[in-house]
Amino acid sequence: MQKVGILGGGQLGRMLLQAAANYPVITYVLENDPHCPAAHLCHHFVQGDIRDYDTVYHFGKQVDTVTIEIESVNVDALERLEAEGVKVYPKPSALRIIKNKVQQKLFYKDKEIPTAPFVILENREALRAHLGELPAVQKIGEGGYDGRGVHILHGPEDLEQGFDAPSVLEKLIPIKKELSVIVATNGHGENAIYPATEMVFHPELNLLDYQLCPADIPRETLWKAEAMAMMVVKGLASPGIFAVELFVDARGDVWVNETAPRVHNSGHHTIEAAYSSQFDMLWRLMLGYPLGNPEIRQPSALLNVVGAEGFEGDARYEGLDDILKMANTFVHLYGKKTTKPGRKMGHITLIGKDRQELVYQAGVIKKLFRVIA
Amino acid sequence: MQKVGILGGGQLGRMLLQAAANYPVITYVLENDPHCPAAHLCHHFVQGDIRDYDTVYHFGKQVDTVTIEIESVNVDALERLEAEGVKVYPKPSALRIIKNKVQQKLFYKDKEIPTAPFVILENREALRAHLGELPAVQKIGEGGYDGRGVHILHGPEDLEQGFDAPSVLEKLIPIKKELSVIVATNGHGENAIYPATEMVFHPELNLLDYQLCPADIPRETLWKAEAMAMMVVKGLASPGIFAVELFVDARGDVWVNETAPRVHNSGHHTIEAAYSSQFDMLWRLMLGYPLGNPEIRQPSALLNVVGAEGFEGDARYEGLDDILKMANTFVHLYGKKTTKPGRKMGHITLIGKDRQELVYQAGVIKKLFRVIA
Repeated sequence: MQKVGILGGGQLGRMLLQAAANYPVITYVLENDPHCPAAHLCHHFVQGDIRDYDTVYHFGKQVDTVTIEIESVNVDALERLEAEGVKVYPKPSALRIIKNKVQQKLFYKDKEIPTAPFVILENREALRAHLGELPAVQKIGEGGYDGRGVHILHGPEDLEQGFDAPSVLEKLIPIKKELSVIVATNGHGENAIYPATEMVFHPELNLLDYQLCPADIPRETLWKAEAMAMMVVKGLASPGIFAVELFVDARGDVWVNETAPRVHNSGHHTIEAAYSSQFDMLWRLMLGYPLGNPEIRQPSALLNVVGAEGFEGDARYEGLDDILKMANTFVHLYGKKTTKPGRKMGHITLIGKDRQELVYQAGVIKKLFRVIA
Repeated sequence: MQKVGILGGGQLGRMLLQAAANYPVITYVLENDPHCPAAHLCHHFVQGDIRDYDTVYHFGKQVDTVTIEIESVNVDALERLEAEGVKVYPKPSALRIIKNKVQQKLFYKDKEIPTAPFVILENREALRAHLGELPAVQKIGEGGYDGRGVHILHGPEDLEQGFDAPSVLEKLIPIKKELSVIVATNGHGENAIYPATEMVFHPELNLLDYQLCPADIPRETLWKAEAMAMMVVKGLASPGIFAVELFVDARGDVWVNETAPRVHNSGHHTIEAAYSSQFDMLWRLMLGYPLGNPEIRQPSALLNVVGAEGFEGDARYEGLDDILKMANTFVHLYGKKTTKPGRKMGHITLIGKDRQELVYQAGVIKKLFRVIA
């Protein structure tokens, strides 16, 4: 039986391991926290730091294949493992490009993939020369994750808040829609493209409210989005699964925002909504099976379950019974013991025939349900 | 977080634990074989004999709730655990009735639930007085499982093959269809009935070929089957999930064959075909959540993947790539290292709009796919 190791033991690892149990495979997880969401769902849990060279190298030497569930891993160790014959998904060369947002932006530019105009800044001081370009988005090169390391600088008065590290300063695109296109590629020319997902943001809070799949976009926009996602994946030249986040502007132009070289939050609905979920798909790639079917069985909405503001401690799920009584909901709680504001604690998928019904029900769930302590 | 223990670590435990990872729960498994399909998917694996009183009792004392994935467990220990406040699904009283096929038959008779006419035999010698009733089905009282402990005695010449133990001798019903109705009940008057599943047998080999859901039966037959399944479940007076197997005869009469007080092979299609799978449903019951929605999203067929005749050893899956390429298949392999003839190694679910297409495709899969060594 093949041995596959996952770097990181969060909810993505947890869902990967749920899907792994459909196949003959021996699973390993490397993660510092022995109580992480994935720790108890693998054959072999190894406690250790995914950012440490020796730890990752020795972990990888035990297995046939390594994958990641988070980008902040030791890429040097993965490169050595790859050189020594371990299969790595995604390839370390692709991970290195994506992991650093400066490199990622330069990659899009190099491959002529439409992305918001930008300048590279070495440090906070370098920002002074670009104050005229504000408001703009600043993204730190290394270490950003899950909303951290990205902010808007509104004007010269925000100079002191600028990151004092290599970063990207990016023109604000007048966004009409945010999309995600997930692509699986086996490295032998075969690809599977999931239907585009649309991110719906709260009009006032500017936070992701819920996702809808398929996205409500004209066919031409979809074609552009898919073509651009494929350009990214071909440019990265690595087998694996990739979530390409895109903006659609008021004119209908499409821009690549960012890419994740792994299973992604924007694909969680595929567990119930698609024939082959993003997690199933990655196992197929890693185990050398044919690609799965990315088509969706039914339209879906997805809400993230995050810790409510003002609550920190042992998690309680207010309104859970109401949600579980709904005929078309699928609740995924990640088993995290403690909540804090904004922490991802789970997600809820709705499936249905009708977009309007899904949007309405997503609103109901948001009112009924919250994670408190 | 609640602690739930499972007695047995086979494929049913494996699929239960896949579903458990959607909820906050600490899981325990008791099983002799540390390499069993479920061993690596729980928080705490305990190696031990599910038939041993002390082992089961001490295992159960660690948790809030105990369930089973096989009937051959120590019921005395479960009774003591129940008396000491541990929740047990199903109740030991129900398990005691079902576990012994003599008791199970007497239960149906007592509750006036239609079942094939029968006599109880104390031993092989007692068979002599009933040779005139052959051909008939003989079922051993204790210890039968998965086809073992059941056979047909064709005539007096089969006397020596009769079980020399307490058994049921049952009239052969002229079976037109075999059905399974799965019912979940929470013990507070709420029930969820899954759509009936139809077992399709090979016309020559008389082995289960595949299952179809929903069953192709007249509405009146479905009503009878559901009513009888509910009679069984009410009679057992226990919360839990129950698979009631039924015969339909040529006249359209419905007879209860057997009941399983747990998740069951005839419900595996519910993972992809229903809103709430049988595994999800049992977690909802055990964790005190509302019942799930047993309705099906799409019609389905299910094939068991069993070890091919003539092969014993490390399992290999011939034709697996062909199956994985099909747009509507869901492959579940249970991760068992070795195969032998007839061993359950996995199952394949197909979903589709059309019964005829599903039947055709099930036939194709049977030709393409086998487990060899």
